[in-house]
Amino acid sequence: MADTVIDLNADLGEGFGRWRLTDDEALLSAVTSANVACGFHAGDPATMRRVCALAAERGVRIGAQVSYRDLAGFGRRAMDVPPDELAAEVAYQIGALEVFARAAGSRVSYVKPHGALYNRAVRDEEQAAAVVAGVRLAGPLPVLGLPGSELLAAAARAGLPTVPEAFADRAYTAAGTLVPRREPGAVVEDGDEVVARSVRLAGDGRVTALTGQTVEVGARSLCVHGDTPGAALLAGRVRAALEGAGLRVEAFT
Amino acid sequence: MADTVIDLNADLGEGFGRWRLTDDEALLSAVTSANVACGFHAGDPATMRRVCALAAERGVRIGAQVSYRDLAGFGRRAMDVPPDELAAEVAYQIGALEVFARAAGSRVSYVKPHGALYNRAVRDEEQAAAVVAGVRLAGPLPVLGLPGSELLAAAARAGLPTVPEAFADRAYTAAGTLVPRREPGAVVEDGDEVVARSVRLAGDGRVTALTGQTVEVGARSLCVHGDTPGAALLAGRVRAALEGAGLRVEAFT
Amino acid sequence: MADTVIDLNADLGEGFGRWRLTDDEALLSAVTSANVACGFHAGDPATMRRVCALAAERGVRIGAQVSYRDLAGFGRRAMDVPPDELAAEVAYQIGALEVFARAAGSRVSYVKPHGALYNRAVRDEEQAAAVVAGVRLAGPLPVLGLPGSELLAAAARAGLPTVPEAFADRAYTAAGTLVPRREPGAVVEDGDEVVARSVRLAGDGRVTALTGQTVEVGARSLCVHGDTPGAALLAGRVRAALEGAGLRVEAFT
Amino acid sequence: MADTVIDLNADLGEGFGRWRLTDDEALLSAVTSANVACGFHAGDPATMRRVCALAAERGVRIGAQVSYRDLAGFGRRAMDVPPDELAAEVAYQIGALEVFARAAGSRVSYVKPHGALYNRAVRDEEQAAAVVAGVRLAGPLPVLGLPGSELLAAAARAGLPTVPEAFADRAYTAAGTLVPRREPGAVVEDGDEVVARSVRLAGDGRVTALTGQTVEVGARSLCVHGDTPGAALLAGRVRAALEGAGLRVEAFT
Repeated sequence: MADTVIDLNADLGEGFGRWRLTDDEALLSAVTSANVACGFHAGDPATMRRVCALAAERGVRIGAQVSYRDLAGFGRRAMDVPPDELAAEVAYQIGALEVFARAAGSRVSYVKPHGALYNRAVRDEEQAAAVVAGVRLAGPLPVLGLPGSELLAAAARAGLPTVPEAFADRAYTAAGTLVPRREPGAVVEDGDEVVARSVRLAGDGRVTALTGQTVEVGARSLCVHGDTPGAALLAGRVRAALEGAGLRVEAFT
Repeated sequence: MADTVIDLNADLGEGFGRWRLTDDEALLSAVTSANVACGFHAGDPATMRRVCALAAERGVRIGAQVSYRDLAGFGRRAMDVPPDELAAEVAYQIGALEVFARAAGSRVSYVKPHGALYNRAVRDEEQAAAVVAGVRLAGPLPVLGLPGSELLAAAARAGLPTVPEAFADRAYTAAGTLVPRREPGAVVEDGDEVVARSVRLAGDGRVTALTGQTVEVGARSLCVHGDTPGAALLAGRVRAALEGAGLRVEAFT
Repeated sequence: MADTVIDLNADLGEGFGRWRLTDDEALLSAVTSANVACGFHAGDPATMRRVCALAAERGVRIGAQVSYRDLAGFGRRAMDVPPDELAAEVAYQIGALEVFARAAGSRVSYVKPHGALYNRAVRDEEQAAAVVAGVRLAGPLPVLGLPGSELLAAAARAGLPTVPEAFADRAYTAAGTLVPRREPGAVVEDGDEVVARSVRLAGDGRVTALTGQTVEVGARSLCVHGDTPGAALLAGRVRAALEGAGLRVEAFT
Repeated sequence: MADTVIDLNADLGEGFGRWRLTDDEALLSAVTSANVACGFHAGDPATMRRVCALAAERGVRIGAQVSYRDLAGFGRRAMDVPPDELAAEVAYQIGALEVFARAAGSRVSYVKPHGALYNRAVRDEEQAAAVVAGVRLAGPLPVLGLPGSELLAAAARAGLPTVPEAFADRAYTAAGTLVPRREPGAVVEDGDEVVARSVRLAGDGRVTALTGQTVEVGARSLCVHGDTPGAALLAGRVRAALEGAGLRVEAFT
């Protein structure tokens, strides 16, 4: 495991105007990739600018966390957006973020869909292709997503680098997919277990499914959640444990 | 006048979703610079993409028409936006448009504020400086605006190229400022007169004020309005008259 | 047919701020029920006020045309809105419109979902129930919708009056459902045919399906579309033909 | 002071979708009047419904906290909204809230402008009149505002009941106006002092100005702020102190 490299990504800048959600400063001390909200589900321009400046300062890679246009639903309500509109909306968000990343001396280095768009692009070939079309409009950026998803398949077909990610705080099925949030046991609440699962996922790419089997989950990035109390603390513990296990925690290249 | 060069600019892409306002196709046959709405007062991403593609195809320069965040008021309601927020909002809009300009093989080549922000930045030093700060965040772009405005002064101080513009369909005071829209005679309704004023403004930079005096208005660009019935037709007549008078109608450099 | 009564409904007030879509004045001369946009897909407060005043003045009944919160998509993009949120959003829109209806001396007399919400509530039991829950929050109002839809079923179960409607400009299947818009022949483009179908639908509730069969479509209201050029003119022709055929064109009671 | 009655009001429901700001439950245990956000600066429909239900359950009076349409700026950015638009926007918000108040078995009992609209309506006669016109569209409701403001003057001229309010945590000038927030000492940070000022303001309507003079501030309501940490706790202390001083804490009638 000595030369195993793992990336840690988290959602940042998910406030809007007067409202804050994530402890951006603290999270940026733990993660190596920051999925920055781009204004469609969260993220006003001033927040985007601030988060990009902080990320660049700490050497954290900046990614565009693109979403359906849905402030009221925080991007968690799936929408039947026609492909052309969706592609343009994705490109718009990436472009807007790019200004702040560049102004901070960095760049938008990857794209990750948020919330309902993330989930939809796992199975919906049309929307997955539309997201990828939007990314290509903005430039040939890597796409971060679920292994086996339509999103990563579409990205690969389009010649874009893909970055599969795993979730240390989510239960997996025997097939290696995520247990839907509404089912019991879908979310791993215990911090110690999240830390232990992180080390195993990063180390040998395996996780124990909710039904007991060992499952292979090839992931180059681990997602830590940022929008719960104690999230930043837990992210820090995960990072320390990964490093303690001899893993190199670095942004993917 | 043989080597006099004049730019023609108009607002384009000022629909939103289902709604259209400007006849973008027709206007793009007449103008040399397109002020493309960036989503804050008008302009959804799919429209922005379409207009950028059309503009690039016809060799029309693309500019970012930045606005207050005010879809309901079409950006015509002045807002006391704190400078940091305003600068970030301006940069956000430019960045979003840049994606579509580049995807079309072009670039965002200048910035022009829209509506109430344009008017406010004529006299409000703080907001003018904030707009310029936003432009600088996005890159050292030329700023299009009213001669003598705080906006152009702030841009010049910041080392940005400035492009003074004139309005052939607006009445001027003896001091060379625009007669406020609410006053009688503020808008020149007659097409023939608009055409004649265009030729004179472009040719020797002069216009007859509402009170009869001859006024110098140094302008490198003429603004033709696009959001009225017959606007595209009038723009075409203006262009033909300028060319007929031996002027070169070209985007500023 | 002497005592047959039919209602004519159309969508009105579907502009937003600077943008207009429907010729509200002309449509109000033809229809008996006005589905007024309530701000979520279209319809700013000043427009709502104006349309309510005009409708009240002409004795046209006012209905709330409720929608998903989606200005950018004009409410045409289906959304997975959780039932509690959807019910509250529906109630919010009805309440907002009620103020303007009352200020004009009228009342909101019925509710009709718009666009994607209308289509979704035909088959989606959960969203249909949520719409009805929202209507009940606002008051026991009649619900206008497609015969056989989950929406009308949910309304009936909740004890709300239901108003089935038919579309003279849409093709029907042999089963009495609408031919989806994407299929060829889905929309009846010919004005004369629309007028003839209107009279038959209103008179004996029958229509010829796209596949030739005669279909029963029990409808107490006919929907005429308002957002196309010539819409108001066609609505007027439909009304004249209905009256010429001895039908009474009146709002449902 | 035995029969002195004072109202305690606070802003509630100032979240939006995923975001929360105020501890509505705790505040509702302390105040007698709830200024409920209506969706323009904060307050999604589901939150409005929930807050109205809680308020009604605890016998707390419901008021409409109306605002400029400005989610991104939390209604704190003054806007030059034309009077007709502003009146319609105010009425829209009141109507939307009324649905939830009625569904909870209560009513909207008063109107209080929020943020920049509150401040603007202190001195801007045109906007003050527009707010009052909006209130009248929705019904003859009492208007809560600053003593001596254009808002209360316009309300009085229109025959609406007026409710002057005082701020225990804001410094006053010798003229009885609020010290602007940007000036030093404008906000009283010390909880004990806020409590003491509350009792005095409620008891004999007096407060010590920042410059030392005793000032008369006739107020029928005291505003306690809800959007800071510890706000609900402080509100509870203020209420206990008022009651301990023999004052009756009740909604105005």
